[in-house]
Amino acid sequence: MQLAALKHRTESEDCTVIDHSHVKIRLHTAKDDVKKVFVHYIDNYLPPVDAATLEMKKAGSGQVNDYWTATLTAPYHRIKYTFEVIGNDGSHIIFGDRSIEKFSDEKLREDGLYFKVPYFHDIDRIKTPAWLKDVVWYQIFPERFANGDKSNDPVNVKPWNPEDHPGREDFYGGDLQGVLDHLDDLQRLGITGLYFCPIFKASSNHKYDTIDYLQVDPAFGDKDLFAKVVNEAHKRGMKVMLDAVFNHLGDQSMQWQDVVKNGAKSRFKDWFHINSYPVEPYRDPSKGEKNPPYETFAFEKHMPKLNTANPEVQDFLLEIATYWVKYFDIDAWRLDVANEVDHHFWKRFHDELIKIKPDFYIVGEIWHSARPWLQGDQFTGVMNYPYTLQIEDHFFKHKLDGKELSEHLTDQLMMYPDIVNQAMMNMLDSHDTARILTLANGNQDLALQAIAYEFVQPGIPCIYYGTEMGMSGDNDPDCRKPMDWGKLNGPVWKRVYELVKFRLDHQDTLNQGDVKLTVTENDLLKVERTGKETINAYYNTSDHDIKIDKKPSLSQNYEDGILAPDGFLVEVKA
Amino acid sequence: MQLAALKHRTESEDCTVIDHSHVKIRLHTAKDDVKKVFVHYIDNYLPPVDAATLEMKKAGSGQVNDYWTATLTAPYHRIKYTFEVIGNDGSHIIFGDRSIEKFSDEKLREDGLYFKVPYFHDIDRIKTPAWLKDVVWYQIFPERFANGDKSNDPVNVKPWNPEDHPGREDFYGGDLQGVLDHLDDLQRLGITGLYFCPIFKASSNHKYDTIDYLQVDPAFGDKDLFAKVVNEAHKRGMKVMLDAVFNHLGDQSMQWQDVVKNGAKSRFKDWFHINSYPVEPYRDPSKGEKNPPYETFAFEKHMPKLNTANPEVQDFLLEIATYWVKYFDIDAWRLDVANEVDHHFWKRFHDELIKIKPDFYIVGEIWHSARPWLQGDQFTGVMNYPYTLQIEDHFFKHKLDGKELSEHLTDQLMMYPDIVNQAMMNMLDSHDTARILTLANGNQDLALQAIAYEFVQPGIPCIYYGTEMGMSGDNDPDCRKPMDWGKLNGPVWKRVYELVKFRLDHQDTLNQGDVKLTVTENDLLKVERTGKETINAYYNTSDHDIKIDKKPSLSQNYEDGILAPDGFLVEVKA
Repeated sequence: MQLAALKHRTESEDCTVIDHSHVKIRLHTAKDDVKKVFVHYIDNYLPPVDAATLEMKKAGSGQVNDYWTATLTAPYHRIKYTFEVIGNDGSHIIFGDRSIEKFSDEKLREDGLYFKVPYFHDIDRIKTPAWLKDVVWYQIFPERFANGDKSNDPVNVKPWNPEDHPGREDFYGGDLQGVLDHLDDLQRLGITGLYFCPIFKASSNHKYDTIDYLQVDPAFGDKDLFAKVVNEAHKRGMKVMLDAVFNHLGDQSMQWQDVVKNGAKSRFKDWFHINSYPVEPYRDPSKGEKNPPYETFAFEKHMPKLNTANPEVQDFLLEIATYWVKYFDIDAWRLDVANEVDHHFWKRFHDELIKIKPDFYIVGEIWHSARPWLQGDQFTGVMNYPYTLQIEDHFFKHKLDGKELSEHLTDQLMMYPDIVNQAMMNMLDSHDTARILTLANGNQDLALQAIAYEFVQPGIPCIYYGTEMGMSGDNDPDCRKPMDWGKLNGPVWKRVYELVKFRLDHQDTLNQGDVKLTVTENDLLKVERTGKETINAYYNTSDHDIKIDKKPSLSQNYEDGILAPDGFLVEVKA
Repeated sequence: MQLAALKHRTESEDCTVIDHSHVKIRLHTAKDDVKKVFVHYIDNYLPPVDAATLEMKKAGSGQVNDYWTATLTAPYHRIKYTFEVIGNDGSHIIFGDRSIEKFSDEKLREDGLYFKVPYFHDIDRIKTPAWLKDVVWYQIFPERFANGDKSNDPVNVKPWNPEDHPGREDFYGGDLQGVLDHLDDLQRLGITGLYFCPIFKASSNHKYDTIDYLQVDPAFGDKDLFAKVVNEAHKRGMKVMLDAVFNHLGDQSMQWQDVVKNGAKSRFKDWFHINSYPVEPYRDPSKGEKNPPYETFAFEKHMPKLNTANPEVQDFLLEIATYWVKYFDIDAWRLDVANEVDHHFWKRFHDELIKIKPDFYIVGEIWHSARPWLQGDQFTGVMNYPYTLQIEDHFFKHKLDGKELSEHLTDQLMMYPDIVNQAMMNMLDSHDTARILTLANGNQDLALQAIAYEFVQPGIPCIYYGTEMGMSGDNDPDCRKPMDWGKLNGPVWKRVYELVKFRLDHQDTLNQGDVKLTVTENDLLKVERTGKETINAYYNTSDHDIKIDKKPSLSQNYEDGILAPDGFLVEVKA
């Protein structure tokens, strides 16, 4: 047996307290290396000799690991447990907190070999909003969604042409009135959550270079209008999420301008990370220049980094964060460059928001593995790029075969507790990536097949505006074309509508059921979901027809028992 | 190569930010499985193609793992890195954040394979008090240390006989005046920190069943006297640590008695975990009884568990915790049953204390692996039982041979960042265990040899009162005999004095130097410490003489190049 492959950390995703009396545990072993795993468990203050025994079940296989799980009951809200592992090679060991030992009944009675969960505290348990499972998010890039009010258009606004390829500095005049005007369209599509890219006053078209967080950008509208958008969204059963850029300020902000002007004498000098005074023009290390005079987001001279360890900055940002919740009743914040802001700040942020709205949703922008932020005290979820990018690596880029995809995604799922996986934000494209149709090389069936794969996963799906219109677009800024309203209610729209409807009709199972990702013998990608219902989904990502005999609730390119390339079918069993 | 053995978690002990520009990383591989490891690293916003490369060094070997480390420099306070691993079997791979891949220059340029540390925030970095390395703790069990004031003796006090075997309910009259009287003796021994078992008002001799946290137990003295003890200790360069029992109250406390009397109408009913009203006498599941009417520490009916999720209880306990710091200037809290109190509470506790005294030391009583509490936001260290118990398993119980001991301790060291290992409280015995001399079966040389092994480890050593007098004692209550003052300045005392002096003369290296634990070819246990100095220590734990030619700074049973059984020598190189 590969002993060094055995992994289990208490109070990590390997050991999740589910409620006051239950804990779900996971054990990692090397793949195809272990025959059986038993867990022996008992109250911390009772002798191991009386321990109960449960056989663990194999929950899935990753790239190099098998994952085993079991749910244990602890009547006195505390538990100790140890693993008995039987290898395919016949070896028989105990894997414990302090060491690995040859199996014997005597060793099984050694308290030091037991992992301990000292007490199941409800206050420490990870919690997520109950409403989350009912959501399909829809991402709006306000400058490009709809122009509902020509009176607030920026100067030199370009004509609203969905075929246009926007430049970095172009404006098209999209605004909040445009969103308001189209809320009914979004409701008809089935959308239950709106995620807005920044709406606060800023110079650029994307508004990530905030000038004033307490002002709606005048080209988008004003606070009264935003309040109306939120109220009308809520009336339609939609949640509202705003985008918070707290890692940095725009260099046109009053605070940064004060620092530039007054240097070490500025009352805002400790709001940033400044290396030397007076503050000289930025020297960019990515261009070979040395000693940048101040720290920025990436090497972006227009975005000086905020010092969130400064209590004044914390208070400033928290006032903003709570203001939009208290007075406008938003339901969620999406946090830009969330990983580069300190944990202390996010903990305060989380606590203050949860105090105001206990079921508030916080999602961070993090492109890599994100465990430190997902312990229940900072974010509810993250934008799940490490997950969705692998879906693209299979469906569009063919860098992973079906088996590899299933394994990699299983590894990703095993990085977090189930409850965190269920709260992730899953999107296949966004304002920061090429559009899915472009990734699919213009193959609309393929794009929809990938969406249908995403839609049966745990985690909350998010549709980027225009996907339902079959819009294309390469990397930023091309993915930010003006919305193609001419395609409303068209054939692509109808198929996206069906996907959203299916997701929400089965959201209990699709969000919270167990998940198993595999490949069938005849090479179909398979997703098994087991919860209130049993839902099996199959995807033909090969280049040839594949036979499969099912009665699907939802399908594409399926006829007479043949699933054609780019096709899928989803079967629901009661 | 055993691919499933490769382990690295960012923002765990595998990746510790040391200062604003340096991070120390670790990689786990299967033992004797890997030939070389390189780390490729670069700023997060620069392309991997420009990454620097560093060969990692093998820091040690555990039971089934090898551990590799490297320190990386990040001029812009953020870093990404990936591992290139070359197996003994010739396999050559990249171990990255998202997957394991066959090595190629092309793969090395894939950003998704890089682990990320998004920004080195000083506020999130683990910090420990600078004074800690200058400490050798001395644990005082007040009822048994010295009786300095006969006027406050409990009734039925027993004669002060160090040969006595105390019963569970016996009193001997030890008090704070006794401590004050002997401060000079402790100073002469070299002691620089006093750790007091509970001194607050309680019924028992051990005082873990607190009645009033704001009162010194009258049999020990009063607050004026305690203030004097602290002041006199501080004058002698000694830190003072008190013992806080915040998991439960004594059942004689005013709050619990109110609940017993008034049931669901008691204003303290939410202070505890009560299952049914009226509060019936305890039913003990460990004796086969069912449905305990309230929750307790272990199954101890006299110790009802506090509900630390209740803000009233939090405020109550924090008032106590801060009171003794603000008004008596204590330097540290030792936290009883610390693992069973919720993390939310400990975070508040940490923050409030650090606000008052930024270099405050917090040590939790946790007998198992304790990562969740040692992230820098709760405890500075824990009582390091998983470490010290393994020392005993070798020296006294012969359950581990020297190689196994070195491996197990290496595994333990690799569970935490270096800075946490350095802040651990290492003790070979305490009021909760048999005394070391008894564990050593009365062999004083052996007991001192084990202490000498403990004294060259990272972590802060702690001597249990009476060790320097060569006191014996079996498990609690036998380990709590009245102090044997007749042995003051005796032969054992002198040897302990020498050990303390050696530790403090070399504390920089012994606390903060690198550590390597191995066994020599001729079967001596070896500890290598590398810091300001190079210190090598050797221990003969066999039953025969072993040749070794050194010029030791400290030794026992060493003569003419022969290290006899139970002997040790410590060599200091400049």
